[in-house]
Amino acid sequence: MTSRTALIAAVAASLFALSAHAEGPYRNPDNKSVYDAGEGTYPVLYKKPTVAEITASLDRIRSYMEATTPTRVVHKGSGLQITDFSTPVADAIVEPSSADWGIQVYEMGVVHAGLMKAAAVTGDSKYTAMTARHFQFMSDKLPYFKAQEQQFHLERANSFARVLDPRSLDDAGSMCAAMIRAKFAKVGPDMGHFIDVCGNWVAKKQFRLKDGTLARQRPQAISLWADDMYMGVPALAEMGHLTGKREYYDDAVRNVLQMTQYLYNPQLGLYTHGWNANNPDAPRFYWGRANGWAVLTMSDLLDVLPKDHPGYPKVLAQLRASLRGIAELQSGVGLWHQMLDRNDSYLETSASAIFTYVIAHAVNEGWVSPATYGSIAQAGWVGLSSRINARGQVEGTCVGTTFASDQIYYYNRPASVDALHGYGPALLAGAEMIRLINNPKIDIQVKLRTYHYVPKDSGATNYSHE
Amino acid sequence: MTSRTALIAAVAASLFALSAHAEGPYRNPDNKSVYDAGEGTYPVLYKKPTVAEITASLDRIRSYMEATTPTRVVHKGSGLQITDFSTPVADAIVEPSSADWGIQVYEMGVVHAGLMKAAAVTGDSKYTAMTARHFQFMSDKLPYFKAQEQQFHLERANSFARVLDPRSLDDAGSMCAAMIRAKFAKVGPDMGHFIDVCGNWVAKKQFRLKDGTLARQRPQAISLWADDMYMGVPALAEMGHLTGKREYYDDAVRNVLQMTQYLYNPQLGLYTHGWNANNPDAPRFYWGRANGWAVLTMSDLLDVLPKDHPGYPKVLAQLRASLRGIAELQSGVGLWHQMLDRNDSYLETSASAIFTYVIAHAVNEGWVSPATYGSIAQAGWVGLSSRINARGQVEGTCVGTTFASDQIYYYNRPASVDALHGYGPALLAGAEMIRLINNPKIDIQVKLRTYHYVPKDSGATNYSHE
Amino acid sequence: MTSRTALIAAVAASLFALSAHAEGPYRNPDNKSVYDAGEGTYPVLYKKPTVAEITASLDRIRSYMEATTPTRVVHKGSGLQITDFSTPVADAIVEPSSADWGIQVYEMGVVHAGLMKAAAVTGDSKYTAMTARHFQFMSDKLPYFKAQEQQFHLERANSFARVLDPRSLDDAGSMCAAMIRAKFAKVGPDMGHFIDVCGNWVAKKQFRLKDGTLARQRPQAISLWADDMYMGVPALAEMGHLTGKREYYDDAVRNVLQMTQYLYNPQLGLYTHGWNANNPDAPRFYWGRANGWAVLTMSDLLDVLPKDHPGYPKVLAQLRASLRGIAELQSGVGLWHQMLDRNDSYLETSASAIFTYVIAHAVNEGWVSPATYGSIAQAGWVGLSSRINARGQVEGTCVGTTFASDQIYYYNRPASVDALHGYGPALLAGAEMIRLINNPKIDIQVKLRTYHYVPKDSGATNYSHE
Repeated sequence: MTSRTALIAAVAASLFALSAHAEGPYRNPDNKSVYDAGEGTYPVLYKKPTVAEITASLDRIRSYMEATTPTRVVHKGSGLQITDFSTPVADAIVEPSSADWGIQVYEMGVVHAGLMKAAAVTGDSKYTAMTARHFQFMSDKLPYFKAQEQQFHLERANSFARVLDPRSLDDAGSMCAAMIRAKFAKVGPDMGHFIDVCGNWVAKKQFRLKDGTLARQRPQAISLWADDMYMGVPALAEMGHLTGKREYYDDAVRNVLQMTQYLYNPQLGLYTHGWNANNPDAPRFYWGRANGWAVLTMSDLLDVLPKDHPGYPKVLAQLRASLRGIAELQSGVGLWHQMLDRNDSYLETSASAIFTYVIAHAVNEGWVSPATYGSIAQAGWVGLSSRINARGQVEGTCVGTTFASDQIYYYNRPASVDALHGYGPALLAGAEMIRLINNPKIDIQVKLRTYHYVPKDSGATNYSHE
Repeated sequence: MTSRTALIAAVAASLFALSAHAEGPYRNPDNKSVYDAGEGTYPVLYKKPTVAEITASLDRIRSYMEATTPTRVVHKGSGLQITDFSTPVADAIVEPSSADWGIQVYEMGVVHAGLMKAAAVTGDSKYTAMTARHFQFMSDKLPYFKAQEQQFHLERANSFARVLDPRSLDDAGSMCAAMIRAKFAKVGPDMGHFIDVCGNWVAKKQFRLKDGTLARQRPQAISLWADDMYMGVPALAEMGHLTGKREYYDDAVRNVLQMTQYLYNPQLGLYTHGWNANNPDAPRFYWGRANGWAVLTMSDLLDVLPKDHPGYPKVLAQLRASLRGIAELQSGVGLWHQMLDRNDSYLETSASAIFTYVIAHAVNEGWVSPATYGSIAQAGWVGLSSRINARGQVEGTCVGTTFASDQIYYYNRPASVDALHGYGPALLAGAEMIRLINNPKIDIQVKLRTYHYVPKDSGATNYSHE
Repeated sequence: MTSRTALIAAVAASLFALSAHAEGPYRNPDNKSVYDAGEGTYPVLYKKPTVAEITASLDRIRSYMEATTPTRVVHKGSGLQITDFSTPVADAIVEPSSADWGIQVYEMGVVHAGLMKAAAVTGDSKYTAMTARHFQFMSDKLPYFKAQEQQFHLERANSFARVLDPRSLDDAGSMCAAMIRAKFAKVGPDMGHFIDVCGNWVAKKQFRLKDGTLARQRPQAISLWADDMYMGVPALAEMGHLTGKREYYDDAVRNVLQMTQYLYNPQLGLYTHGWNANNPDAPRFYWGRANGWAVLTMSDLLDVLPKDHPGYPKVLAQLRASLRGIAELQSGVGLWHQMLDRNDSYLETSASAIFTYVIAHAVNEGWVSPATYGSIAQAGWVGLSSRINARGQVEGTCVGTTFASDQIYYYNRPASVDALHGYGPALLAGAEMIRLINNPKIDIQVKLRTYHYVPKDSGATNYSHE
């Protein structure tokens, strides 16, 4: 390949970042008039998805997740299984995943949320089998790894470090929320001890601004990350749900609203990735996934926040405003860009999946109207489903990304099927899309080569002229 | 073609959507210094167009329109001509156009407007020959198709359905305005009966919001379309012009201002395609042609609205604001994008033609300054003329497009030479460009490799340093 | 090359406009973990630049400038050197540069500023050798060319026309400021006579609006150019610096603030290229280099403006606002686009170099925080250094550009190594980057595959979790 050809290929790749499975152009199969001059072709399979298609996507992801998350203890060097747990050994670790992800990382908390949602929507308990297996393993092996730690002091090298000694919201919040949801859903063993540890970290121990906003000491000494809305708030909300204590809800609401004060640009309807106390007016970076965490946080909070809580209408209003800003930046293939406001950055899967989920969920919950948003969710799924390959891998997800300060970094973050961040959101999105397709309050009209999600109680439409 | 090559070609096509006739790079022929290092090349023929060149473009379009709009009655199946009109037959239809467009559709009303404008500017009556022919045919054959309807009840299959039984603004408004203009221009027969029917539909029968705004019952039960500014208001304005009744002007002005309240984003200076009563804060879609209809409407209205009408300055202010927003989004080849705010959507001809016309017209009428806007109109024509091919076809026009709710739909609407929406605007633009080039109040200076439209009464410019 | 291939190549070229030296993709060499899946590749060499690397770039540019700016007098036709200066001859000219640039043009004033900055930062006087040589030559030969003018009346054809008979800000301001700076830096001979002439032009003779804003009589009779902030204000500021007269500072501040009133869009944080009195609400063109001149002006002014001048906080606030708007539009390769708000216009070097300089300088001066802005300056240098080739040429700079009124013009301005506008800014940027890298108040942390410019007094960061 000549350098010029390589450059051209790079142009094509960077613009569209199409997965290997996007073999379009496609024709919309919902239009049965094959010679219709008013129907063009599409770079993705523009159609109303069926429940069977979505379910097949969910199943492939579920199978891939099951196959890549072993729950065995092995020797670090040899990989040989350990079966004697009477005395800890220094090199005992949780068997590594072929896809290089841990079973206690925050991204896995989102996967559990997705699996529980899929089980709830489909009524099929096979989706939560993995959640039950992981939690049972964690519950069974906690004493072993605790003993290992007491004897060998491995710190972050201990496979159970995150739950034995959480040090950040990433360690605690997402998994905490997942465990409480599992308790309500009666999935897996009693995880009460884990919930206590991680809930306590989020509520009491995490570094905060003086005003109580959850914060970090990196990259600058006092920094806020939009991601931390998700790393903290759903755990607080579920703690409120679990304990009935108002203070958890108050803290969750306060964090959403205060984070919004620091990070949200109302002119664009977007969140900047982060904020540093030593430069509060810094240039902003509208990173896709950070906006995903922000809206997923508000959605998760509204799911459990009592409707009479004074924060409820405020959080709902902020979610609506954010979804409008995000929806207005959806690309022509249904996905969203790595930098939401930059159409020359690549199309990123995890943010697209979160947006698809939250928009569909907001429609199903009645938080936003099916009109317009139903079609946007469908378009999101059309794009997203092109990224779920035959093996059940979710392609095109930006790998773990720090809060950085230049666009070279953000634009060139690699995308990988090994980035776990895409899997939970894809499961959530698929499950919620099934709910949307089946929503009894919505009439999904296929008219004039496109889709109209019409609330059934909104009066009759009239296409008599066509 | 390999799939990679195909993808690259798709990138190129989607970015530039150059017509087969754009065989650049071009050098600006107005710069006689052929080795000037300060002069680059252009993807379109950047130059000051001459009246002869524009006239040639108009002639090609006119010829193509004449050739593709037969006015004969034929049997539907056989295509054989019907010459006996004494008794209607069920299969009588107006002979179909090879380009698949009807002589009574709203787009043809714009073609007539363009032809009449070309005749007025050039003084050459050949431009209105087609208008006269169509209207004569419609006048002659109305009794026959009315009788056919009474006997066979063909409804929308009757070739004269739109004028026998208008059911929408599309059926009535544009053609109504064209017929009144023809009456003033003394082109064709007396179309009074047609004007009565269609004017009555627009003024009295079309579905409206409670506040009087012209509306539709699709895609949602209560919806507004920016397109309907054009489908309704020019007809109301011309009815005012024809009858002298103030109420028509009032209704026209009210609709412009109320539509603007619902659809206009003052931050961007753009109109969203539509609005649904059941989701007034929905994400917005800045579709090019809808913005074209909006500004063409204001322009048409100002052409006949008495200057002492209280709505005059309001409509003029709104036109100016809109033109600024639109002008700021013109592409680097002079055309505008399908989605005005999205430079990765394709370059669309019909919207570009309307904008070119309205901007040139606004300059000529003194509604906006020649400074800046003169060059923008010229650049619009440079882009637009690259889309008028040797046969007189107008290339690159988005086909008929519904008010949809997702970007996959809008981005991937096919563009076609058979989309009649581009022809009338191209005629209007060419005619108005001739007027601009010949405008006695403007000194068009070719200086420093670009163009400056200088009002002759604005004081002397000084290039002495160069 | 087929036309399709050519088109594709044009797409690639126009999108990235990569120099011949950008042979990426690159891997960040600061990340020593070569198999790190979290590290991608980059189209530019994303890394923390070293002082040695930057110095090497400065040296190459300096050498190229020296080699291409002869200071000899020759016969115009033959090119033969003139050594007898006792009697002027009509065809005597300053020997033309192979790169086709003059030694008295405003762009050369910026080059001198860059050379003096490089000498100051590195302590190496070789950088100012060229400045001394040029100024000595100008001082020596002024009488000769003055006599030539008196005898032959060559007007603009006289090689010393700009200093003998300045007619515009371009002729006077930039070189005036450079000469005063040279006086303070004790570089070259006494240029007092030149300073008097050019300073007088800027302060007293240039055409102005009635409110005192520096203006031009082209392209419209009364026009403002954002470029003229730089062509006028630094000279006024340095005249204040030289003479101690408050009135120069007042005029400088007034011009910055009034130009801002006319040209600045606070919504975007950008300056439009120009403004015409006969169309104050015209569509705006956010040309990169004009924004460069604007922020360089404010930076130069703050360098000498007494801190107790009432304009100081106003100019500083405006610089901060502008830098934020500009920084938010930096591309994914560190450079900025020809039209700042249009990512489909080419990546332009001179604007990028000015922005890199001003941002780095603002950090070093404490006008903006290192947090975020340090990384942005570094990214700017990463992009910019890819444009400095092995010969010391600065590639990709837009040639001289008038204040025009259409995007076809702006998008298609050629970029050339012969455009002198890129050289001075590249020198300034490199010198200031050395200062930034060496800044004792900043801890440049290379963490998590990116860069964090942490003020040393801002408290400890904490990456303990990683």
